[in-house]
Amino acid sequence: MNFEQLQKQVDFIHEIDKLKYIQRKTRLFNSNRTENDAEHSWHLALMAVVLAGHSNEAIDLLKVIKMLLIHDIVEIDAGDVFLYDTVLNHTNTAAELAAAERIFGLLPQHQAQELILIWEEFEAGETDEAKFARAMDRFEPLLQNQSNKGGTWAEFNVPYDKVVEKKSVIKNGSAILWDYAKKLIDSSVEEGILKK
Amino acid sequence: MNFEQLQKQVDFIHEIDKLKYIQRKTRLFNSNRTENDAEHSWHLALMAVVLAGHSNEAIDLLKVIKMLLIHDIVEIDAGDVFLYDTVLNHTNTAAELAAAERIFGLLPQHQAQELILIWEEFEAGETDEAKFARAMDRFEPLLQNQSNKGGTWAEFNVPYDKVVEKKSVIKNGSAILWDYAKKLIDSSVEEGILKK
Repeated sequence: MNFEQLQKQVDFIHEIDKLKYIQRKTRLFNSNRTENDAEHSWHLALMAVVLAGHSNEAIDLLKVIKMLLIHDIVEIDAGDVFLYDTVLNHTNTAAELAAAERIFGLLPQHQAQELILIWEEFEAGETDEAKFARAMDRFEPLLQNQSNKGGTWAEFNVPYDKVVEKKSVIKNGSAILWDYAKKLIDSSVEEGILKK
Repeated sequence: MNFEQLQKQVDFIHEIDKLKYIQRKTRLFNSNRTENDAEHSWHLALMAVVLAGHSNEAIDLLKVIKMLLIHDIVEIDAGDVFLYDTVLNHTNTAAELAAAERIFGLLPQHQAQELILIWEEFEAGETDEAKFARAMDRFEPLLQNQSNKGGTWAEFNVPYDKVVEKKSVIKNGSAILWDYAKKLIDSSVEEGILKK
């Protein structure tokens, strides 16, 4: 029995455990504890299962879920970039690409290639699957902030217009979800937890 | 625009955040911190993506992933039962069924039914998808314990025979993975981190 392929997969499984240490800025619903990338990725994958019917276009749900399970793995090396960061921006940086090649590169070659391509597709945000996956990624922290009396909006003084600008990409994946999200953002202003 | 269905889905998304607070006995790889159910579920789902090719039978990977994403959600109400617990056992208890009905019941009816059925299929462990999903659930803590100088085996004095008994269900999902796992268990005895 040749375990060579399997050992590479186990090495990858071992390595990605580090995603559980990468802390995001957003906090759990009704909590002061920040969320880590592994928890976040689980939540988004299950959101995709539940919300897939609201996608603008028919999507390959398995591919969307793979995207969401792996979308933040590069942060093991490259770190989390906050959505409202005013210096760094969350584009496909050289550091993230190097991280993708190192971490997915632990896998047997055909799997490494598949996952790097899926990650790049997510980052590019052009296919229907990537648009829907990115909608999930923007929708979860919105729910968290609304649930946490403003959350990172309050903590980092993020104004209404910036929130609308960043969150409006939700509509590329789901018009219905964006209608819902926009109402939530507007009602957050009325509640006094987001400044206009 | 009728948001009624969507609001039910958002209520579910909100509720399942609590899975991030349910602590398991096993610890992260090379760490003293215990793993929570959300992190664990993410890890298993991605393990299934990577290891699916080792399944004994052809499987519906999307269904396996759905199973793994939701398999512990009942623990929000019913709590985690440790694999080597000598009093409780991890069968489909009345408390778990009530939890499934309450939590999945937050969703629109057709989705609640789908996820309850998938959860019951996982618990029964009879289909090829459930067998493979259950193999993932047994394999991850084995890697963790081996990585943590014995982990829960050492902490709770679990002997070799008990570990082999509990872990041997891996072979129902994947003979190759069980060969690998058995070698890992045996080498753990040689390393002195598991008692025979």
